[in-house]
Amino acid sequence: MSDFTIDDALALRVEEGFHLSDVDPSETPGFEGDSDELDEAFHSFNDLLDEEQEKLFANGRKHPETTGGILLVLQGMDTSGKGGVIRHVVRQLDPQGVHTVGFGRPTEEEAAHDFLWRVEKHLPGPGLISVFDRSHYEDVLVQRVNALAPPEEIERRYGAIVDFESRAAANGITIIKVMLHISRAFQKKNLMERLERPDKHWKYDPGDLEDRAKWERYQAAYQIALERTSTDDAPWYCVPGDNKKYARMVVKALIADALKSMELEWPEADFDPEEEKKRLKKS
Amino acid sequence: MSDFTIDDALALRVEEGFHLSDVDPSETPGFEGDSDELDEAFHSFNDLLDEEQEKLFANGRKHPETTGGILLVLQGMDTSGKGGVIRHVVRQLDPQGVHTVGFGRPTEEEAAHDFLWRVEKHLPGPGLISVFDRSHYEDVLVQRVNALAPPEEIERRYGAIVDFESRAAANGITIIKVMLHISRAFQKKNLMERLERPDKHWKYDPGDLEDRAKWERYQAAYQIALERTSTDDAPWYCVPGDNKKYARMVVKALIADALKSMELEWPEADFDPEEEKKRLKKS
Repeated sequence: MSDFTIDDALALRVEEGFHLSDVDPSETPGFEGDSDELDEAFHSFNDLLDEEQEKLFANGRKHPETTGGILLVLQGMDTSGKGGVIRHVVRQLDPQGVHTVGFGRPTEEEAAHDFLWRVEKHLPGPGLISVFDRSHYEDVLVQRVNALAPPEEIERRYGAIVDFESRAAANGITIIKVMLHISRAFQKKNLMERLERPDKHWKYDPGDLEDRAKWERYQAAYQIALERTSTDDAPWYCVPGDNKKYARMVVKALIADALKSMELEWPEADFDPEEEKKRLKKS
Repeated sequence: MSDFTIDDALALRVEEGFHLSDVDPSETPGFEGDSDELDEAFHSFNDLLDEEQEKLFANGRKHPETTGGILLVLQGMDTSGKGGVIRHVVRQLDPQGVHTVGFGRPTEEEAAHDFLWRVEKHLPGPGLISVFDRSHYEDVLVQRVNALAPPEEIERRYGAIVDFESRAAANGITIIKVMLHISRAFQKKNLMERLERPDKHWKYDPGDLEDRAKWERYQAAYQIALERTSTDDAPWYCVPGDNKKYARMVVKALIADALKSMELEWPEADFDPEEEKKRLKKS
């Protein structure tokens, strides 16, 4: 029986003095055990998630003015497991209350707007959970590494992101930002698997190797993004990702924490249940 | 071991000469067995769903011009189990490829447009599955029963819906329309449960009893909608709903059929895998 707890997940938070290079992608902080125990720990959060997400959704319906939402941002290098988190963790949630968005290369229309424009419209409404597969952070990651915007514009964006996220938090959105941190060797293994299996070819892009060649520059860009935008309103969690099941369990625990912290109650009836029972019996 | 098959689900299709009153909501056509066997049959479609949905999503990514989508429309009286289908069946799908939309009372902006306006923008893109919890059919159901639009406008809508759906089909969208057909007695039981359990109060609305009082008029409106809009492009399935697990299994089988009928293959590599392996090894 594993004793991995929500606190173990919260301990992965990016705090002052954080160095990405101190995080070993192959470790599983807070968890010791075999693959079966990992499965067990993974599922141990299911009941909490089920009940609390339904409460959140219910409150969003009945009291939209006072109910918040949750935003989960997933970032990481190619093959870091963002899709797997969605397939295995987000699937645990009731689809009625979840909105998943992938952010690829900006379209022409998107590129014509401020970089936050395309993101803002996908913020979660009352009672809902939005999941971003990549996000506005690409605008300070791939865009920084490849100098796709002038340096002063990149610089401006860190502050713009902090402001944007703190406005969202003030509007009741709980923000969880996860960097799935894998090793360069693990990426090689994953890319090789994509090349060896015809059912995975569609996930491979020859351009992935260009990004891979810039590994250190990406790590440096992540370091800057994490240290400059991990705030109380919108903390980053740097999750070791070489053990995919471990990373998924951590993300699940972080969602569980966000839901639990809302201390939700079932909405009170805005009718008299006894009176309605009488009406129903006669109906 | 149950032998419920996709063909059993397809047999519930609304054909010429269909009468809603001939369908017994408590029956489970094509299935005989206990609750455990029903669970087993329910899960028997999982592998097909997993693999074929991923193929659909993959093709949507690589070949958006030639890849279709799936639209699942869920209709039914209050407590007929639409939410349960989403929670139990749609959850089986990868959230990356699914978009769930609930259609409530039209907003002021929506009401100012043609009734199909708010629906059209949620049609599935390439490789995606949209699920409608209620839909444009409310505009010929609740609106007909309560005379919320002039009779000639209601009349116009049946043809407009058929045109709209056949255009969507021509654009590659496979449409599955499901009416979850429950009995009036089953609804009473469900509503009572909502009144008895504080964690279900949020789902209850005193107005539900007004709709319940108009049961026969709703059934008549369903009869007209089903017979006038069940087409080869967009067939209706009338699914007995008093056994919720049975109804969910049927919907799952219908999605499985839609995916299977697409005869999808994994997208072919648009690169030379052997060449890329060499590049990767050196990287």
